[in-house]
Amino acid sequence: MLDLRLEAQAGQPLVEQIVTGLRGQIDDRVLRSGHRLPPIRRFAEHYGVSRFTVVEAYERLVALGYVQSRRGSGFYVAQRAPTVPAANHAPLSDRAVDVAWMLRRALDAPPDQLRASDGHLPPTWLDDEALRRQIRAIARDEGARLTRYGQAQGWLPLREQLCVRLAEMDVAARPEQIVLTQGATQALDLVARYLVRPGDAVLVEDPGYYNFFGNLRLLGARLIGVPRGPNGPDVEAMEKLAAEHKPRLFFLQSALHNPTGGDLSPALAHRILQCAERHDFLIIEDDIYGDMQAQTSTRLATLDQLTRVIYVGGFSKTLSANLRVGFLAASPDLAQTIGDVKTLCVVSSSEFAERVVWGLLVEGQFRRYMERVRQRLEAARSGAQRMMERVGLELWGEPKGGMFLWARIPGVEDAAPLAEAAAKEGILIAPGHIFRPQMQASPFLRLNAAYASDKRLERFLAQALD
Amino acid sequence: MLDLRLEAQAGQPLVEQIVTGLRGQIDDRVLRSGHRLPPIRRFAEHYGVSRFTVVEAYERLVALGYVQSRRGSGFYVAQRAPTVPAANHAPLSDRAVDVAWMLRRALDAPPDQLRASDGHLPPTWLDDEALRRQIRAIARDEGARLTRYGQAQGWLPLREQLCVRLAEMDVAARPEQIVLTQGATQALDLVARYLVRPGDAVLVEDPGYYNFFGNLRLLGARLIGVPRGPNGPDVEAMEKLAAEHKPRLFFLQSALHNPTGGDLSPALAHRILQCAERHDFLIIEDDIYGDMQAQTSTRLATLDQLTRVIYVGGFSKTLSANLRVGFLAASPDLAQTIGDVKTLCVVSSSEFAERVVWGLLVEGQFRRYMERVRQRLEAARSGAQRMMERVGLELWGEPKGGMFLWARIPGVEDAAPLAEAAAKEGILIAPGHIFRPQMQASPFLRLNAAYASDKRLERFLAQALD
Repeated sequence: MLDLRLEAQAGQPLVEQIVTGLRGQIDDRVLRSGHRLPPIRRFAEHYGVSRFTVVEAYERLVALGYVQSRRGSGFYVAQRAPTVPAANHAPLSDRAVDVAWMLRRALDAPPDQLRASDGHLPPTWLDDEALRRQIRAIARDEGARLTRYGQAQGWLPLREQLCVRLAEMDVAARPEQIVLTQGATQALDLVARYLVRPGDAVLVEDPGYYNFFGNLRLLGARLIGVPRGPNGPDVEAMEKLAAEHKPRLFFLQSALHNPTGGDLSPALAHRILQCAERHDFLIIEDDIYGDMQAQTSTRLATLDQLTRVIYVGGFSKTLSANLRVGFLAASPDLAQTIGDVKTLCVVSSSEFAERVVWGLLVEGQFRRYMERVRQRLEAARSGAQRMMERVGLELWGEPKGGMFLWARIPGVEDAAPLAEAAAKEGILIAPGHIFRPQMQASPFLRLNAAYASDKRLERFLAQALD
Repeated sequence: MLDLRLEAQAGQPLVEQIVTGLRGQIDDRVLRSGHRLPPIRRFAEHYGVSRFTVVEAYERLVALGYVQSRRGSGFYVAQRAPTVPAANHAPLSDRAVDVAWMLRRALDAPPDQLRASDGHLPPTWLDDEALRRQIRAIARDEGARLTRYGQAQGWLPLREQLCVRLAEMDVAARPEQIVLTQGATQALDLVARYLVRPGDAVLVEDPGYYNFFGNLRLLGARLIGVPRGPNGPDVEAMEKLAAEHKPRLFFLQSALHNPTGGDLSPALAHRILQCAERHDFLIIEDDIYGDMQAQTSTRLATLDQLTRVIYVGGFSKTLSANLRVGFLAASPDLAQTIGDVKTLCVVSSSEFAERVVWGLLVEGQFRRYMERVRQRLEAARSGAQRMMERVGLELWGEPKGGMFLWARIPGVEDAAPLAEAAAKEGILIAPGHIFRPQMQASPFLRLNAAYASDKRLERFLAQALD
């Protein structure tokens, strides 16, 4: 029988409980396509619900495309859950330059796709139980105010906790210098909205975090790519580009850089800040993967103490991407102004979600949990490296940590055709050009070590690179 | 003894449980300033915790400014919780034209302030218990995926449920035409970001929803005010202004308009759509207060069927402002594109929050609950009207429903000085100029019927208008 828990007393009607439960298991591939669902009568008897309830639930699942009814033989899990809007079925080549489409493709990928380049850890690696424990604790907490708006800059205790964490990196910040946001992405968005006007030049890393490139394009910014080396951006090139383009802003990831996995060296950090001062631009330091580091590498915010540097972080990669909790830390005036921009764009963030994250941080198990994640990632990375050697992919530099492997396909100029071929086989691979400011062709691709052990990937790559 | 529940087994440390519990009660004025907290020994014995725990909790509360320690006599609830960032203490007159500041002032108002003009219902009116029940149900729901990103346009079952609700207003929409957002405000923001370029003219109602005016100014839009009458915008004026300014967009609230409380008449609705077609602009219909209507008045989306109209709604006013769940419904292409803008700005919204709202909607008690709210509001409105007659405020038209009363101060040109005087006495009153596109002086002010029964307000108004 199925692993379902139905509760007649729960707020949710039984039909909904069955539909939601089965959908979740189908999405998570606990129930795979072709699996036969229990006959209506047996289901009804086993769970002590009426047959009408079961019929209604099965029919809703059929309507949603999760289940097929085969006349005479019963109900079966369908080939794939069609949760992807029709427009997304356009072939990759048609919209390869569309960052939003890339993202949507990843977000709405049917469960049977292999997310070989995914930007986050497999959901099973995250501590779902601790998350649910916190949620239950807050649902019981009489002091928690769950119906009203949160404070403008976000829930004070979490901002206080973030100050403690920043202090561990020798960054001195007060709670009024923190603005809590809907994930780190919104922190980047709010900063850009306030600082970037159409036509402004913005220095970005090449390659770099493509989603924010799309966001900057949306604002009409001119993206100026600074080559990213194994130890950080090429400062000579940066100096010339800054002199030529008079940028408003420089955006980088110092630690566990996406997509290359590299860290910023102290010497380059120092020179970047000198360059910023000479050419008077601000810096957004995106530290979304920082908690995955065993030893903390140099942060610009540590040297600069939030004068020119706006530090951005979040918990989507480590605690939950679902809660949408991120933050920025900046000089008091800038934080206050960006807090004002936040109120104009979303009024406030979710105090509930902020309480959950706060609870997970103060619970004291966060460090141990991250240690486990790091160990798993280390094993996954070495496994992935061996696989890449077997199939003949050339790794770019030794990855310092984290989930990303940046690898080159020998003898080709553009990895896009490989990604297209992979997509046709249900394997999502992010080709290098996606990570480049002008989407120039690139022989590289980004793999997520946590997914690289899937044999389908090795089989595909071995064939494709043969 | 205090009404506190401490659980040694909860995820949260005992000290945090005490601090959070007491903070909540002080914020909610369950414990009022001057109230003496139990002596450390008695507290420790009563709750079976160590004295160190109590000392640490009390000291944290002192550090946070919630509690004062008076030598020799113990711990007392402090005068006010200083949760307001320093910058907010600037006098109203200094920053009266700053919408974001107005909002922040309301969001971060200390608990002892009277929110006489608040934009939402008193938290005690909302169904906190139903909310907590849903949250617990989802924390138990094995099928719920709480660690990963949600779908690009938001959780499908809620989008399906919203289609059902739209159908009840005779608006036909498919789930792919819905984009779930971080509150209705973000829906407005995403639409504006996609459609409005710096210098574009946008028609808005005068008076109208000031937060979105601030958002449009942030985008560099030119705000063109269309006078709002008791039955909707002045269409003759609108026709002239549209011909002159070639607007990209018209933003209005058809039902229970903020701040006047009026509804849109069918005839004006029809003529607005004709005008939009003649001058080829799109319309944002913000229906955030719609669920508070006893009888549904005309919606533009019902006539237009989401061709020119982008319909925006949310649940911050009715279910929880804390979860941040809103949505927009638009033509399939527009919805898809705005969904792409959403991924670039925030990646995705919180599936968890969307599941909570979905649960509250399908639970079947939403209608009954809204009926209770409507009855309370009706009583509150008539009480407020009588109070306004007593103090000599002139009501602008008969309010059709909802929480807002739009009233004129006889014999003055500008209500701002009154609002400033009120602020000095801890009474937050929204002066009319805030709701005007160019912040022109206005003799009106907006009152929230649910707070109008507070004697402090009548006393202040009687004196001020004497």
